Amino acid sequence: MNDKHEKVLDDPKESVRAALRCPRGEVDVTSFPSDATPLFPGSGSNDGEKELKELRPRLDDLQERLYANSKQPRARSLLMVLQGMDGSGKGGTIRHVVGMVDPQGVRLHAFKAPTEEELAHDFLWRIRRELPEPGQLGIFDRSQYEDVLIGRVNKLARAEEIEARYGQINDFEAEVTTRGTRVVKFFLNVSKKEQKQRFLDRINDPEKYYKYNPGDLVSRSHWDAYMEAYGVALTRCNPDYAPWYVIPADKKWYRNWAITTILIEELEAMGMTWPPADFDLQAERLRVAQC
Amino acid sequence: MNDKHEKVLDDPKESVRAALRCPRGEVDVTSFPSDATPLFPGSGSNDGEKELKELRPRLDDLQERLYANSKQPRARSLLMVLQGMDGSGKGGTIRHVVGMVDPQGVRLHAFKAPTEEELAHDFLWRIRRELPEPGQLGIFDRSQYEDVLIGRVNKLARAEEIEARYGQINDFEAEVTTRGTRVVKFFLNVSKKEQKQRFLDRINDPEKYYKYNPGDLVSRSHWDAYMEAYGVALTRCNPDYAPWYVIPADKKWYRNWAITTILIEELEAMGMTWPPADFDLQAERLRVAQC
Repeated sequence: MNDKHEKVLDDPKESVRAALRCPRGEVDVTSFPSDATPLFPGSGSNDGEKELKELRPRLDDLQERLYANSKQPRARSLLMVLQGMDGSGKGGTIRHVVGMVDPQGVRLHAFKAPTEEELAHDFLWRIRRELPEPGQLGIFDRSQYEDVLIGRVNKLARAEEIEARYGQINDFEAEVTTRGTRVVKFFLNVSKKEQKQRFLDRINDPEKYYKYNPGDLVSRSHWDAYMEAYGVALTRCNPDYAPWYVIPADKKWYRNWAITTILIEELEAMGMTWPPADFDLQAERLRVAQC
Repeated sequence: MNDKHEKVLDDPKESVRAALRCPRGEVDVTSFPSDATPLFPGSGSNDGEKELKELRPRLDDLQERLYANSKQPRARSLLMVLQGMDGSGKGGTIRHVVGMVDPQGVRLHAFKAPTEEELAHDFLWRIRRELPEPGQLGIFDRSQYEDVLIGRVNKLARAEEIEARYGQINDFEAEVTTRGTRVVKFFLNVSKKEQKQRFLDRINDPEKYYKYNPGDLVSRSHWDAYMEAYGVALTRCNPDYAPWYVIPADKKWYRNWAITTILIEELEAMGMTWPPADFDLQAERLRVAQC
């Protein structure tokens, strides 16, 4: 462990959670910087990989504790919601951050355009089916918020229906929290300029063609409407029990470091210890020794 | 990339696949060494982590190609079946080997004792539901083979029913293969002595209590019956289209290195290239530039 990080994590004023927590009240997402690097302990991109690597043992240990406790009464889980425009780095976050922990404790789901079966149910039906089990680190690549983002921008439902969803999402997240799942939401705040560069990178590299989708330009053409929709979602669905973090996402190395640090802080706040033996230690030592 | 590995992988006589491939015909699993380290390029445990790390970029690249091709016609997938006694290292393999690749392309399932719903169906019903999608790396932590292992040892079904399962498994694996999934099966061959040591390690370390299950001693007490059951399964269900590999598993570092190398060899044998653009490159460059 490294002293700089101990300090960042131990002093609440300097916690990355505090620095990147979306403030309560009216939110204008365009007012947040997309290229800042608050509290990053290194001196820039060259240190990004090094600083991330130093966090790995800590995240790994905390995730294993979460998993180890899965059969304990009132076992917890953590659900990480990733939202952001195309190219904002949801996939990269999964690859580089979630990729640091044991796959056995991970439950990941990427929500695509809803199927006919999904559309036949209320919008939270498909979400509920993918919630993490006790002990798991759950990751939603897109989520219930799509129904107040693309849903709102493209008018995929009646205005009153969309209006009702904010309250339904709050109730849903409260219910999930009560059942032991900490819900932590990340808005990956990429600039319109950086998004364009990432699309060009995908078109210009044969190893990235598969990530390029011409349809992404349609969402881009509604950029301002999306920013407005994100603003409403972050204003109305940002309770203490399910906070939004606004991650400056123009620099991939900062995004990875900040999200990892917040996950560590969130898991540390759970105060998890290793579970006690659920068997008789002396008796089992003897049994194993004799067999 | 490193020259030693290029050589190992390019010379079929020296491939790890060839060295650890379970031979065709009557198999006695007790005749295989559990502590050997065939073809390991380093000089022992000190080099285990280093050699594994050197393989990572290659596995990572191949897995991403598999994933990148998921929407291509006749997209492939790879299913990795992990079988072995308790403590043989199935979980460790997932943590250290599968943990090297992007979680987005992974589909993992651990099969436990069947539920009532599962028991109400034929034994392959629950297996089919967990097969990897096109482009995915699937991992079965235990599998259809439990029904001819614990099923046989504990007489969980009538003898004729268990007898019929070997053919049903072969038919099932042939069908899955025909649909584009390469099935690769690993028997983690741990010695009875090493298993005992691992149980003791779990009992003696509070961070490992959660991995210890007193019931594992019951399976241990039927060790010879399990070895016989593995022998029958590896004899009767070992076709070219779904090979068994017998992994010496007493040394964790060798197990990780050998399985990673075999996965690399298997993925390389698929000959995957990056998929072509499914859009008009020039037109999209222009569209992005202008938006």
